[in-house]
Amino acid sequence: MTLESSPLLTDLYQLNMMQAYLDCGMTEEASFEFFARKLPSRRGFLMVAGLEQAIAFLEDLRFSTDEIDWLAGTGRFGKDFIDYLAALRFTGEVHAMPEGSVCFADEPMLRVTAPMPMAQLVETRLINIVHYQTLIASKAARMVLAAPGKMLVDFGLRRAHGAEAGLLAARASYIAGFAGSATLLANRRFGVPIYGTMAHSFVQAHDDESAAFADFAHARPDGLILLIDTFDTEAGAEKVVALAPKLRQRGIAVRGVRLDSGDLGAHAVAVRRILDAGGLEDTTIFASGGVDEDVLQDIAAAAAPIDGFGIGTALSVAPDAAALDCAYKLQEYAGIARRKRSEGKATWPGRKQVYRSYSPGEGMLGDVLTVDGDAQDGKPLLQPVMRGGRRLDPTPELDALRARAARELLRLPAPLRRLRRDFVYPVRVAPALRTLADEVDRRTGA
Amino acid sequence: MTLESSPLLTDLYQLNMMQAYLDCGMTEEASFEFFARKLPSRRGFLMVAGLEQAIAFLEDLRFSTDEIDWLAGTGRFGKDFIDYLAALRFTGEVHAMPEGSVCFADEPMLRVTAPMPMAQLVETRLINIVHYQTLIASKAARMVLAAPGKMLVDFGLRRAHGAEAGLLAARASYIAGFAGSATLLANRRFGVPIYGTMAHSFVQAHDDESAAFADFAHARPDGLILLIDTFDTEAGAEKVVALAPKLRQRGIAVRGVRLDSGDLGAHAVAVRRILDAGGLEDTTIFASGGVDEDVLQDIAAAAAPIDGFGIGTALSVAPDAAALDCAYKLQEYAGIARRKRSEGKATWPGRKQVYRSYSPGEGMLGDVLTVDGDAQDGKPLLQPVMRGGRRLDPTPELDALRARAARELLRLPAPLRRLRRDFVYPVRVAPALRTLADEVDRRTGA
Repeated sequence: MTLESSPLLTDLYQLNMMQAYLDCGMTEEASFEFFARKLPSRRGFLMVAGLEQAIAFLEDLRFSTDEIDWLAGTGRFGKDFIDYLAALRFTGEVHAMPEGSVCFADEPMLRVTAPMPMAQLVETRLINIVHYQTLIASKAARMVLAAPGKMLVDFGLRRAHGAEAGLLAARASYIAGFAGSATLLANRRFGVPIYGTMAHSFVQAHDDESAAFADFAHARPDGLILLIDTFDTEAGAEKVVALAPKLRQRGIAVRGVRLDSGDLGAHAVAVRRILDAGGLEDTTIFASGGVDEDVLQDIAAAAAPIDGFGIGTALSVAPDAAALDCAYKLQEYAGIARRKRSEGKATWPGRKQVYRSYSPGEGMLGDVLTVDGDAQDGKPLLQPVMRGGRRLDPTPELDALRARAARELLRLPAPLRRLRRDFVYPVRVAPALRTLADEVDRRTGA
Repeated sequence: MTLESSPLLTDLYQLNMMQAYLDCGMTEEASFEFFARKLPSRRGFLMVAGLEQAIAFLEDLRFSTDEIDWLAGTGRFGKDFIDYLAALRFTGEVHAMPEGSVCFADEPMLRVTAPMPMAQLVETRLINIVHYQTLIASKAARMVLAAPGKMLVDFGLRRAHGAEAGLLAARASYIAGFAGSATLLANRRFGVPIYGTMAHSFVQAHDDESAAFADFAHARPDGLILLIDTFDTEAGAEKVVALAPKLRQRGIAVRGVRLDSGDLGAHAVAVRRILDAGGLEDTTIFASGGVDEDVLQDIAAAAAPIDGFGIGTALSVAPDAAALDCAYKLQEYAGIARRKRSEGKATWPGRKQVYRSYSPGEGMLGDVLTVDGDAQDGKPLLQPVMRGGRRLDPTPELDALRARAARELLRLPAPLRRLRRDFVYPVRVAPALRTLADEVDRRTGA
């Protein structure tokens, strides 16, 4: 059992509640929905990602014999419940927005409908899976919008929070429009294109920077990119110019240089001048080090001559808003709509659907949130993806998800494409949903 | 090959550089050190964690046959290099500060000394492992200091960045002084004590809150904690009081109630009054929902009657400083000290040691950063932990690491214990290290 697929990767209270549901016969069908309660102040929209891993988790859900033995040995649970867990497979339905979709606060990205104990068990890991990739795709989409025409590459594995985050940041950012990742495993697992340059250590290990460039060029002649800021960026560029003719004699072109410190825009201007004066007009400039969407916007505004960017922590950790205020909430049990009314955390009850309207030019005009079955104008965004515990469609090609994401970004209202914070996309709550909320409150004594 | 142990969980450039090192015969011994360049503004100290996973990663380092075949199939690498990778095992030395140690900017937490290509390969994943647990232990330590005598429990799995982060947040926070975690797998893998209450869904699935409390109590009578804020916190407390005598007849005690929304301190005062008036003086109050060290300090200052806290996102994501500015840098190659001088990122060269001085009462007085071998007063903090690729000591008990962390927190200067931001712990750079840096710069032409 791998870490990622272990059903023990959940909260203890899920099993406590499951035992209680079984003890009191509460095994009827429940619907839970996953949604963001509100968006971080620096996010005008979210981009859904992680559905594929969520479906795989549900399809593969089972306790191994070892895990069952361990659970039994804890003495916390009854034998009937342990037997139930040993036989447990996910048999429910899932509706979801496809990966690469744009969504907003209160809109369900995913709905699980299954017998109550089963739908409860999967809460923790489902949130864990969909939250992270949605967080990263949403952050990556901002960078893609801030750097039109530039090549963006994920450099974020090292400071990502653990192994799975590092791997999945590559996937989520590629869906959102990044060109690829430095993470080798993301290429093997998902086919994400990979990119790599060289590190300061390679230069430092040599006694001379020019010798380091030459050694690297001879060993890695294809797609050669040299890191030039280990000691002095402009001096590094001059060394590249001096070395280029010797490399050319051996058939090696310097495809690019990388800057990784200081004022990237200012260094790029100086380096571009040095390269051009040295006949290296075709050598591109790639920049990294503290790049985020704000830096990208500034560089775009200054028209600095940078062709591509490596983006690390700002992508894989999204430190300006490193978590979304999101939840997986019970919306219906045994055919009856439910909500909680906890202070500041009240939710819209019932199974819901989101309808989105577009202008004739396909621009997004606004959404309507309503109860499932209350048809509205526009396109319904939640689609069935699992039934009877099995996926309805094969795993989509990542490039198809990426194409959807690109279309979605094109359809965003202009202020959201410009990352403006003073624009709120209209999401209207339909009368049917307000009526249902009132009914639920009356029934539960509000 | 699990995700966590795959050597493909690295940056492409590491393999590109390895190929180049081998091509030009640069396989002599290199020393890399992992350290934080500077602390986030809201961190006065760091707490080291993750060394055990780092050692396990190095001990188990190997490419599987599948991985070798895949690498060969990419066509990116030469046959000699592929053969080198197939045979690769980590044979180096590691020095490190033990887990639970307090450290500061520029101080190496870990040093790897190994043949250059080997030491280079492991950079990405070593940073990924040690960065995250250090980030979380450092954050958790702040919470422990802010809530003396309170029980703190990790609720952070769901919004942690992926599977490994969720699991290891439980480990790192337990080392730092948390009482335990809600994450079941953390109990199985590491023996971290687990805690669990109930969720709103359990209450919502019932038509009546009191019925939900009774059902849960009968199914889970031991250590019963009831969540009382689904509809109205004080009304929930009244229902607990009304139910308690009936439960008592069946031998069930309400051990605690949990609040999860609103002004936790104010609700706790009201709930405490209701419980006490109802004869439930022994029923504790547990609070969750948006708790971080600032909230804990406020609650402590107000002496609000809360006995313990569940802490989720603020712990497992550390959103106020979700990444550390840290690096794994080449400090010595082939017996010669190295540094980079990139703008704003210059590092201290050579293999280093940190000496810490204490007052007679064991309080921390200050550190000295110097070259390895330049003995200073105080206690040297970096100790050998691996030699010839094997660990020198067995895996430590988590409780021993936790005891060390508790001692370390006791020894912190008072302003750091109070989380004050206007105090900077003194770390002095020894003359020998300054002299070495000058020599390195002269040699590399600065």
